[in-house]
Amino acid sequence: MKDLYSSRIKGMPSILERKDPIIHNSTAEDGPLQQKELDFYEKNGYLFKQNFFSKEEVKVLQQELKRNMNDNQSSDEPYVVRETGGDEIRSVFDVHNNDEFFHNLSSYERIVEIAQHLLGSQVYINQSRINFKPGFKGKGFYWHSDFETWHMEDGMPNMRAVSCSIILTDNYSYNGPLLLIPGSHRYFVQCVGETPENHFEQSLKMQNIGVPDHDSINWLLEKGGRIDSATGPAGSVLFFESNTMHGSNSNISPLPRSNVFFVFNSIENKLVEPFADVSARPEFVANRTNIKPIEPKHFNLNRRKVYLHQ
Amino acid sequence: MKDLYSSRIKGMPSILERKDPIIHNSTAEDGPLQQKELDFYEKNGYLFKQNFFSKEEVKVLQQELKRNMNDNQSSDEPYVVRETGGDEIRSVFDVHNNDEFFHNLSSYERIVEIAQHLLGSQVYINQSRINFKPGFKGKGFYWHSDFETWHMEDGMPNMRAVSCSIILTDNYSYNGPLLLIPGSHRYFVQCVGETPENHFEQSLKMQNIGVPDHDSINWLLEKGGRIDSATGPAGSVLFFESNTMHGSNSNISPLPRSNVFFVFNSIENKLVEPFADVSARPEFVANRTNIKPIEPKHFNLNRRKVYLHQ
Repeated sequence: MKDLYSSRIKGMPSILERKDPIIHNSTAEDGPLQQKELDFYEKNGYLFKQNFFSKEEVKVLQQELKRNMNDNQSSDEPYVVRETGGDEIRSVFDVHNNDEFFHNLSSYERIVEIAQHLLGSQVYINQSRINFKPGFKGKGFYWHSDFETWHMEDGMPNMRAVSCSIILTDNYSYNGPLLLIPGSHRYFVQCVGETPENHFEQSLKMQNIGVPDHDSINWLLEKGGRIDSATGPAGSVLFFESNTMHGSNSNISPLPRSNVFFVFNSIENKLVEPFADVSARPEFVANRTNIKPIEPKHFNLNRRKVYLHQ
Repeated sequence: MKDLYSSRIKGMPSILERKDPIIHNSTAEDGPLQQKELDFYEKNGYLFKQNFFSKEEVKVLQQELKRNMNDNQSSDEPYVVRETGGDEIRSVFDVHNNDEFFHNLSSYERIVEIAQHLLGSQVYINQSRINFKPGFKGKGFYWHSDFETWHMEDGMPNMRAVSCSIILTDNYSYNGPLLLIPGSHRYFVQCVGETPENHFEQSLKMQNIGVPDHDSINWLLEKGGRIDSATGPAGSVLFFESNTMHGSNSNISPLPRSNVFFVFNSIENKLVEPFADVSARPEFVANRTNIKPIEPKHFNLNRRKVYLHQ
């Protein structure tokens, strides 16, 4: 397959024009997003929906996140990723496969229909995780485009995926919220350097390869004019385009930052061979086999018991 | 001398009541601060004056900061402190002694009179520095009370000093601004651990001793109700009380964060022997000999040449 977005190059990196649509074959009439929301996403590469979940729903989600963390406390499964130099859980991956609650949540109608709207097709989950950024010592994450990694290391051919972050703790400007460069999704920043084998084991904790250079970030910032912070109350949901440049600072505040994270990929954008010269990464970060289109389900998150036994 | 604020203890730390006034023997009539500014400082432990310097003045200050950094590029003076694991300058200390421009700036009337107003006496500079937090990789600084260090390692007897930070780059929420816990200046948080000899060499880069525990920070935050960020345009000035709990997150944004920093101490609060069992730190972080009261000077910062040769 032709590589539309070459990266991990030697020498000087270039900034390439995006070759894919941002919103795929959809209009506002297809719903559920309104025209102004589509326009915002098209222009900025993300959409932040404040208070998407009610307080009661957030409570259930927080309980389930905590329960999952506890379940995995002494797990040595590879999908449980811990902080460097510590024992604390940083992320639990693949929760749509290994946890009944989050499996069900991944087909929650109100979320899935937005992903379908943006991607203009049926969707499946390419990656899922819950993140727990502890207070006082949560580390930052340097600028990156998810698509660059997914393309090079997982073989995602086109920019036709959207990340959905369900925010489960209040995100303030000072507790390490996600930072995004508006408009950056319109450009592909080539990264320098070859990809080592098993890079993923490191890259889930700290990114070394697939890191954009300073000049390119400066260029994107000049173009975008500002950095936006995904701040808002627990229960807000952030959708961001696969190629939007984002990162976060550290968190010295006592307030942790937790979220549930689903990557929806278009059923027409299935993974192929990685474009970097590496073996395919494990299923729990790059789904190759379980790609049945999601059937959106309507259910009541407040009534946890009913929901879990339906 | 009686130790009013014991710290570096073994066992469980306590939170002690402040034993000093916050504003010392001053009323609004003494000027230049207004009553509501005094009230804000008294309550919150800091005062942020937006656009204190004009755009033209900021330009001069920025030029001088850059010039000083260049002058010190290959210096091996101990007062030039570099980033851990790098060659970049993080701070240049003692600029009120070793640099003519910053020497003059340290007696700038509009600043000094505010320090005098808050401290209710004549003042002198106990410490000065210029800070350069680079974009992309500026590291954070964990929560701390300056007074805890100054008391234990330098022998500052009472809480009667104020830090003045002249902000020379726009401070956004996302480029590592100073974070403060309002009201924290009213409590002294004991820190655990003994102070090693020559601790200062490390502590200027990263704090390990004199670090408050998580429970105390949580307590202060509950009491204060929020974390405030010192964000604002270049030319703003932050005054904060010696014991106000503060820190900062890292800075992945391309935007550097530079400032000029003066610590004004009351002439009635001169340093004594350190309260920790250590040798006194060097003069460039703790002034013991050059304690002539500052004579506030009126001059025009815009007209740099005239000013420099006056």
